[in-house]
Amino acid sequence: MTMDFRIEKRLTGKLGRAGTLTVPHGVIETPAYVVVGTKGTVKSVDSAQVKEAGAQVVLSNTYHLYLQPGDEAVKKMGGLNKMMNWSGPSMTDSGGFQVFSLGAAYKKGISKVLQVTDPSLLIPERFDDSDAPRLAKIGQDGVSFTSHIDGSVHYITPEKSIQIQHNIGADIIFAFDECTSPNEDLKYQGEALERTHNWARRSLEEHIKLENQKSFSDTSQSIFGIVQGGRDEELRKKSAKFISEVEVEGKKFDGFGIGGSFAKEDMQTAVKWVNEILPEDKPRHLLGIGEPEDLFMGVESGVDLFDCVLPTRLGRNGTLYTKEGKIHITNTEYRLDTKPVEEDCPCYTCTHYSRSYICHLFHGKEMLAGTLSSIHNIHFLVNLVKKIRQSILDENFAEFKESFLNKYKQ
Amino acid sequence: MTMDFRIEKRLTGKLGRAGTLTVPHGVIETPAYVVVGTKGTVKSVDSAQVKEAGAQVVLSNTYHLYLQPGDEAVKKMGGLNKMMNWSGPSMTDSGGFQVFSLGAAYKKGISKVLQVTDPSLLIPERFDDSDAPRLAKIGQDGVSFTSHIDGSVHYITPEKSIQIQHNIGADIIFAFDECTSPNEDLKYQGEALERTHNWARRSLEEHIKLENQKSFSDTSQSIFGIVQGGRDEELRKKSAKFISEVEVEGKKFDGFGIGGSFAKEDMQTAVKWVNEILPEDKPRHLLGIGEPEDLFMGVESGVDLFDCVLPTRLGRNGTLYTKEGKIHITNTEYRLDTKPVEEDCPCYTCTHYSRSYICHLFHGKEMLAGTLSSIHNIHFLVNLVKKIRQSILDENFAEFKESFLNKYKQ
Repeated sequence: MTMDFRIEKRLTGKLGRAGTLTVPHGVIETPAYVVVGTKGTVKSVDSAQVKEAGAQVVLSNTYHLYLQPGDEAVKKMGGLNKMMNWSGPSMTDSGGFQVFSLGAAYKKGISKVLQVTDPSLLIPERFDDSDAPRLAKIGQDGVSFTSHIDGSVHYITPEKSIQIQHNIGADIIFAFDECTSPNEDLKYQGEALERTHNWARRSLEEHIKLENQKSFSDTSQSIFGIVQGGRDEELRKKSAKFISEVEVEGKKFDGFGIGGSFAKEDMQTAVKWVNEILPEDKPRHLLGIGEPEDLFMGVESGVDLFDCVLPTRLGRNGTLYTKEGKIHITNTEYRLDTKPVEEDCPCYTCTHYSRSYICHLFHGKEMLAGTLSSIHNIHFLVNLVKKIRQSILDENFAEFKESFLNKYKQ
Repeated sequence: MTMDFRIEKRLTGKLGRAGTLTVPHGVIETPAYVVVGTKGTVKSVDSAQVKEAGAQVVLSNTYHLYLQPGDEAVKKMGGLNKMMNWSGPSMTDSGGFQVFSLGAAYKKGISKVLQVTDPSLLIPERFDDSDAPRLAKIGQDGVSFTSHIDGSVHYITPEKSIQIQHNIGADIIFAFDECTSPNEDLKYQGEALERTHNWARRSLEEHIKLENQKSFSDTSQSIFGIVQGGRDEELRKKSAKFISEVEVEGKKFDGFGIGGSFAKEDMQTAVKWVNEILPEDKPRHLLGIGEPEDLFMGVESGVDLFDCVLPTRLGRNGTLYTKEGKIHITNTEYRLDTKPVEEDCPCYTCTHYSRSYICHLFHGKEMLAGTLSSIHNIHFLVNLVKKIRQSILDENFAEFKESFLNKYKQ
């Protein structure tokens, strides 16, 4: 068995659904929030605490683990799960997003979601930024990287990405892709999509080859193809169709990632274009997204999996999620506030510590500050998606969405 | 009940003993290693992990908590135990050692234990360092501090130290004292000791006054007096006698701290001088000490309690205790070493993670590195003192000491 995906209930009149996704390390109840552990550790949180916070599945980054400690080292440690003491389902991305971060987006302040107040800033045009500093160069056959750690040069092809991901050994791996900037013009988006599709086929080929070489005792892995195409409807639909249908030795992708760097306004449209085409019986992962409002949008539009570094990144900076919106726990108003971060929150942080203590820990530059805040944020977002799932099962998604978003200040 | 101390077994022909010390938050089996949580948090380790590592008692620093978040804030949070979610016995030091760190020792590289290779460096002389930068100034009545956080000026008297410690609310508090540098001459040591004795009496007076003001529902606290006297036999003995006997309203100190900044060579002698005089039926705490070799020495010389920042400080720097000595986990030799830090160690870190993973975490600058290393080090030292205790009960202390120290490379 590599993967089993079952839909339990559908959202009437919408693309959304609740299901279960079974992989070698366990069952993921979908929709689900995937917790990010970039270098094989969820930053500042121990794996037992990640589990206690309710996380079902962890995603690590191929690019980072390849450079440090190296994928062969991860393999020697027994693979990602054993290395990081995570007994549940696991994933690795393909490194494609890092190509983007180190290339087109490098030092330009572009990330997964662009909050654009002036839409003219998004008028597609191909900037002449050939002189701009980049740590990655994209060729037809793969990508050359300069390591951000030691300046060493590496070359990643789709085959190499899949080999690395097989060494790392997560339950679900991703095809190698090129994530484009929304600033790129249509011509570039089209060329990049050709590469992504070519790399998708090669990724699938390499994956099947490596799966075929496995012995009976090796754990099978599943592979997701990644749909790209920027903000263009035609390209997005073309990509969804191609990635759904591409076939090697009679085998297709086990599920799908929806990639890209989005303007917030464009995200829902792009996700809908794609999910109306992707086969219903396979899981869909919206890569690198999730703020609360994105989660409702995504689920409604047929997304089964989300992942994001936000819970830990914001947590380390003292920003904590509450049902009323984010709070900055370092503010003076919390210095003597002995309530928990959220009064009715059952997470470890809220049941054992006060706002005033966490405020003190941040002011004292104590590491426990980031740990306790990350635990709460992970619990908040993982649990929010669990509640969204339950609302689908209970047939009150729309009511839950409205009541949540009415209270929650973005 | 404030405190109950019972000796279960004595070390034949030596000052050492195994006992139990009962305080409002629980029982400490002595000898015991007290874990330091300077600002109300054991650095990089959550209180549940501290407990799981076997710690019986935590010590926080009055000076740090007074400045941040403030002792009134700690009180508002329900006191030290509630604030940091530590249900077991607790202590605060008096701030006296920080006077030393910010005063005579400030930026001179002097700490608790001096490893002196050239004994002439210890020839007592009073340096003329009146122009040297100091953040603390010692007067007959108390000490003025400049805060290391914001440069604000504070004045701590013995009364103030005790008031702060009553607000913080630990089970055991300490009298305010002056810790001297071993570089000070005999004249200065004598003057400082007079101050320490004067401050001890005033601390005891203030403590009794505040205890008398408590209502039935308030938790009683115990107070330990601190013996000083540097490396001089006469002063040490004089101090042990004074601190043992000083009495206010018919009440004496509940136990004793042995303070000072020691040359390693002098420590055992000084501890013996003191413990031969201190009353047998009260607990003795060797302040700020513990390396493994010091623990055997201390127990043998009649010490019941030790505390030290070493397990967490070394842990955060990648230095881990093993029965063969300390290892530096960031070294290349551990990069692919999939064994635990210690093969037979039952701590959380060793039962769930490998040397190679911890090495990877340090190289990746991941916070979990410090957490996992600190957990192991806390377990190692706490458990070493537990084993020493057991060897007293089993009447094989000498054999255990020999077998341990033969293997352990300092």
